[in-house]
Amino acid sequence: MRLSQMLWVTLREDPAEAELTSHKLLLRAGYIRRVGSGLYVYLPLMWRVLQKISAIVREEMNDTGAQECLLTQLQPAELWQESGRWDTYTKAEGIMFALTDRANREVGLGPTHEEIITAIARDTIRSYRQLPQHLYQIQTKFRDEIRPRFGLMRGREFIMKDGYSFHENEESLKETYYEMDRAYRKMFDRCGLKFRAVEADSGAIGGSGSQEFMVLAEAGEDDILFTEDSSYAANVEKAVSLPPEAVPSHFDKFEKVHTPKKGTIETVCKLLKCDPTQVVKQVLYQVIYDNGTTVLVLVSIRGDRDVNEVKLQNELTKLASNYGGKAVINLQVADPESQQKWAHSKLPVGFISPSLDDSYIDKSSTVSPKFLRLADRTVEHLQNFVTGADEADYHVVGANWGKDFTLPTVVNLDKAKAGDRAVHDPSQILQTARGIEVGHIFQLGTKYSQAMKATFTNEQGEELPLVMGCYGLGVSRLAQAAVEQSYDKDGIIWNKAIAPYHVIVTVPNVGDAKQMDVGERLYTALDAAGVEVLLDDRDERAGVKFKDADLVGIPYRVVTGKAIADGKVEIVNRATKVATLVEIESVVEYLQNELK
Amino acid sequence: MRLSQMLWVTLREDPAEAELTSHKLLLRAGYIRRVGSGLYVYLPLMWRVLQKISAIVREEMNDTGAQECLLTQLQPAELWQESGRWDTYTKAEGIMFALTDRANREVGLGPTHEEIITAIARDTIRSYRQLPQHLYQIQTKFRDEIRPRFGLMRGREFIMKDGYSFHENEESLKETYYEMDRAYRKMFDRCGLKFRAVEADSGAIGGSGSQEFMVLAEAGEDDILFTEDSSYAANVEKAVSLPPEAVPSHFDKFEKVHTPKKGTIETVCKLLKCDPTQVVKQVLYQVIYDNGTTVLVLVSIRGDRDVNEVKLQNELTKLASNYGGKAVINLQVADPESQQKWAHSKLPVGFISPSLDDSYIDKSSTVSPKFLRLADRTVEHLQNFVTGADEADYHVVGANWGKDFTLPTVVNLDKAKAGDRAVHDPSQILQTARGIEVGHIFQLGTKYSQAMKATFTNEQGEELPLVMGCYGLGVSRLAQAAVEQSYDKDGIIWNKAIAPYHVIVTVPNVGDAKQMDVGERLYTALDAAGVEVLLDDRDERAGVKFKDADLVGIPYRVVTGKAIADGKVEIVNRATKVATLVEIESVVEYLQNELK
Repeated sequence: MRLSQMLWVTLREDPAEAELTSHKLLLRAGYIRRVGSGLYVYLPLMWRVLQKISAIVREEMNDTGAQECLLTQLQPAELWQESGRWDTYTKAEGIMFALTDRANREVGLGPTHEEIITAIARDTIRSYRQLPQHLYQIQTKFRDEIRPRFGLMRGREFIMKDGYSFHENEESLKETYYEMDRAYRKMFDRCGLKFRAVEADSGAIGGSGSQEFMVLAEAGEDDILFTEDSSYAANVEKAVSLPPEAVPSHFDKFEKVHTPKKGTIETVCKLLKCDPTQVVKQVLYQVIYDNGTTVLVLVSIRGDRDVNEVKLQNELTKLASNYGGKAVINLQVADPESQQKWAHSKLPVGFISPSLDDSYIDKSSTVSPKFLRLADRTVEHLQNFVTGADEADYHVVGANWGKDFTLPTVVNLDKAKAGDRAVHDPSQILQTARGIEVGHIFQLGTKYSQAMKATFTNEQGEELPLVMGCYGLGVSRLAQAAVEQSYDKDGIIWNKAIAPYHVIVTVPNVGDAKQMDVGERLYTALDAAGVEVLLDDRDERAGVKFKDADLVGIPYRVVTGKAIADGKVEIVNRATKVATLVEIESVVEYLQNELK
Repeated sequence: MRLSQMLWVTLREDPAEAELTSHKLLLRAGYIRRVGSGLYVYLPLMWRVLQKISAIVREEMNDTGAQECLLTQLQPAELWQESGRWDTYTKAEGIMFALTDRANREVGLGPTHEEIITAIARDTIRSYRQLPQHLYQIQTKFRDEIRPRFGLMRGREFIMKDGYSFHENEESLKETYYEMDRAYRKMFDRCGLKFRAVEADSGAIGGSGSQEFMVLAEAGEDDILFTEDSSYAANVEKAVSLPPEAVPSHFDKFEKVHTPKKGTIETVCKLLKCDPTQVVKQVLYQVIYDNGTTVLVLVSIRGDRDVNEVKLQNELTKLASNYGGKAVINLQVADPESQQKWAHSKLPVGFISPSLDDSYIDKSSTVSPKFLRLADRTVEHLQNFVTGADEADYHVVGANWGKDFTLPTVVNLDKAKAGDRAVHDPSQILQTARGIEVGHIFQLGTKYSQAMKATFTNEQGEELPLVMGCYGLGVSRLAQAAVEQSYDKDGIIWNKAIAPYHVIVTVPNVGDAKQMDVGERLYTALDAAGVEVLLDDRDERAGVKFKDADLVGIPYRVVTGKAIADGKVEIVNRATKVATLVEIESVVEYLQNELK
C-alpha cells in the first residue's frame, strides 16, 4: 500500500482522552479513532493487526478440532431468564445493554454467549455419541461499562474469541480445558507476548475452575502473585497464601485501655507498643442482595491483613439463600453516608469489637438490615489480642476468644500479598507483578445446562445435563496489550507476527527521481515476494517520515537515501534501532531472512 | 472434518417457520438455527460459506485499492441528529434499534454507517491531496424489521459489506462508482450467480444515482423490468417506460351516466363499452409527514395504470416543506378506517372525480388534514374521457380537462410494467423477472458531508464538502440467494466457489473395514492436496448418508462402496447427478481437475 493513498493521519500531540501509553500511541499513530464513549473505530492499519491476531487464534483453535461459527449479537431476554442471569446482567450489574424491540420484546446485546450456545446445544445434541463438541466464534461484544477507559482495554465494544465446549463428563471437559490451556499459550507465544497463566476467580460466569492469561505490563489493571519457580501463579483476587506467623502478644490481662484518636492499626500499635499481627480489626460491610435485602457484615481480620472483597462476595453468595436472595448485587464498606440510613447513632468506627452488638441498628428503618459476623482464619488462633472496645477512643488488650469474645464463623477472606509464603511450599515466597487479562478459560460444569435443560443421553441410556467449558480471549484487548508491552519513546514496536505490515520503504525525498525509482522498485519486488510492504511516497519532509515510521512501529524500515549512490539502502530494525547498509539487489532476500 | 465429530444435525421435516425453499433447506441441512424472531445462528457449515463469500468480496475490494476497516456497531445519537436521520430511523420508520445507556445517552445499533464514516472523514481528511479514499468493512448490521421473515433474507441481524468513498468532485466519484459496478459484477460472477444490475430508487440513503444488483430467482421479492438486449434494466420501483397509447374515446358529449355498482375499472368499462385507457381513475392516499401533518392526496391516473408508491413518496418528499415537514413517515391508500377519522360522510369511493372537493373533509377533526391533487402524466392528454361523478353509482363520460375538470399538477407516478415500451428505444418491449437484491451502490453526493460539515480544501484553496459514494452488499443474504437460485428436490446445489466443502467422502458402511480404510485414505490424501473434504464416518445407514449428502449440497460425493473390490470409487456430481467410477489412485487428480 502506498501511504499517499491510505487514509492515515498521525497526531503530533498526545490526545487528552488517553491515560495509558498504549492508548495514546494507537491514537497518535492513526490506528484507532474514538466516536463515542468507549467506542473506537478500527482504521485500516488496526484492522490488519486484528486480522493477524484473529488468524493466529483461528489456526490454533481449528488445530484442536474446535469449529468456528457465529452466534447472534442480539439475545432474547427469555434465554437469559432461563439461566437466571437477565436481572443480574441488565439491572443489578447492568453491564448488558438491553432494549425493547418494536414488538415490545426485551433483547440484550451479547457481552457473552453461554445462553445462546446452550440453547443451540439443547436443540442439536441428543446423545453421548455426538460428544465432545467445541464451537467458537470471533465477534464484537458489548458491555455498558460504568467507566469506559484505556482505549481498547475497557471499551463498550470489543472483539473477542469465545468458545464453548460440551462433554459427557468432567474428565472429558478437563481434557479440552487443558488442551485450551496449551492452545492459548501457543497463541500468545506466536503473538510474541510475555504472559503468565494464573488461577482466577470465576466471577459472574460461574463454574468450578478457571484460569486467566495475563500479558505482563506495568500499567496492567490486575495484580498477579507468583512463586519464583512458577509452580504457583494466581490473580490476587483468587490467590491463597500462608500469612506470616503472628508475633506472640505481651499482654496477659484483659483490660480496657484509653486510646484517644488512635483509630488506625498503625497509631494504636504505636501507642500500645504491639505488632499489627496481635490486633483483631473489624471491617463493616454493607451488602445488598438481588431481592433487595441489606445485610451488614462485620468481618474480623488480623491487623496486618486486608479483606479480599472477591472472596467475601463469593462467601456471601453461598449464604444468599439465608436471606432469600440469589446474588449479591452490591458490596461496599459501610461508609458514613450509608450508615445514616440504618444506624441509630454514630458507630465507633476504628474502635469496633468482634462482638459489636446490633443495638446500633435501627431495625425500624426502611432499610431494616440483617446483621452477620464473619472471622478471617488469620484471627482464629490469636491469643491475648488487642481489639476495639465498642466505644470511641477505647480498645481492649489481652482478649481471648471464648472468654472475652465469641469467635464468629471462620472463613478465608484475607488478601494474599507479596512476601506471603506459598501454600503448596512454604519455603517459596510470593512475588508480585501487574498484568492485563487477555484470556480466561473456565470449567463451567452444568450450571447453564441444568438451568436451561440441555441434556444428553449417556451410553447407559440416562438423561444427564451436558458438562460445559468456556474459553474467552480478548482479540482487540490483546492488540493493545501487545503495544503496552512493547514501545519506546518514539512509538510502537510491533512483533512481526502481528505488525500491520512487515516493512516500510521510506523515500526521503520524493522529488529525487533516483530515490523514488529505487523506492518503487523495492516496493514492487517486496510485494511480489509476499512481504507486506508500505511505500512512504508522501510529499513530506524526511524527518516527518522517519518520525511517523517510528511511531507506527513497522518492524523494518528501508530508506532509499544517500547510500543509493553506492547501490545500497539503509535497513533499520525498529526494535533495536540498528541500521544496516544492504545492497539494493539483496534487500528482498535480506528481509525474507529477517522475517522468517 | 469428520462428520462424526462435527456439530451437524439435519431435519427430516420442513420446519414450520419457513416459507421460502432456500430458508427451509438451510434449516433442514443444518446450516442455520433460529434463536429468536429474525435472529439466526450461523452453524459451522454456514460460517464456512459466509467466509468464502467474504474472501471473494475482500479480494475484489482490495483489488480496487479500497481499504478494509471496522466501524462501531453502536452509534451515538448525536451523529444521526447531525445528519437529520435519527428521528426517521428510530421513530418514523423505526428500523433502527435504539437504546439508552447507563449514562442516559441515546445510542443506535447500526443498520448503515454513513454517519460514522463521515465523522471519521471529517476528522482525518483535510486536503484534496488525500483524495480519493475508499473504506469498507464486513460486519453484522441490525434492523428492527416490522416483519422479519425468509430466514437470512430479511433478518434482524445480517452480515453486510459496506464501503464509503470520498472524492473531490463528481467525476472522481463516478470513476469509483463505475469501478464498483465492475467489481460487484466480478464478485457475483465468481460466486456463480445469475444476476442483473438494475437502476434503482435511492430511498432513505439519498443521493443522485444508484444501482441494485439482483440475483434472479422466482421467489425474489423485487420485480425487475428489462429489455431483451439488456440496454435497460430497472427495479420496478424506479423503472420508467412508455405506456401503450390510449385508445381514442368514442364519447363526444360530456354527460353524467348511471353506473350502478360499477365502481371498478373493469366493470365500468364493460358497461360503457370503453377501454381502460379512456378512463381517469382516482386513488386517494392518506400521507403523514414527520411533523404530524396529514395530507390527503388525490391521484388521477389512467384506468389501465397503477400508482408507483415509491415515486409518489419521492414526489411528496419534495413537497414536504409546503407542509412544514421534512419526510413522509406514512403513506397508504385512505381505507374506510382512516376515512372515519377525517371524513364528514362516506366518500363515493369508485366514483370519485379529479375535482372531488374537500367538503367531505372535516377540517375541525383532530387530524385536520390538508388536501392535494396530483395527476399522472398518463391522463394529461386524454380527451373525452370517462371518470367518476363524485356521487355513488354515477360516472361522467366525454369529459375534458380545462372544460369539465381542472388538470392537477402533472407528475410521473405510474408503475412501469411488462409490455410497456422502453423510453430510450420504443421498439423494445419491457420484460419482467423477479430478483433478490444483494447489492446496492449509490452516488451519494454531498448529502452527508454538507449536513455534518465534512469538508476538504481543494487545489485552489477553497473549502468544499466531500463528495461521497456508498456501496453495500448483503453477504448473508447473498448466501441464501445462491441457494434460492440453485437447488433441486433433494437439496442444495452449491457452486464450488462458495460451497462449505468441495468433497464429501461417504463410507456406506463404517463396519466394513475395507470401505473405512479407503475412506480414511482418500480423506487424508484429499486434505493433504488442499481439497476441502468431509468424511462421513457416522454410524448411519447408507441411505441416510446419501440423503444427507444431497441435502447439504457438497459439489462432489465420493462413495467407497462395492466398486472398491475393483479398485474404484464412485464420484457423484451433485449438480448433474452423474456418477463416474474412478480408480482409487486417481481420485485426487480427478477432483483437482474438476475443481479447477
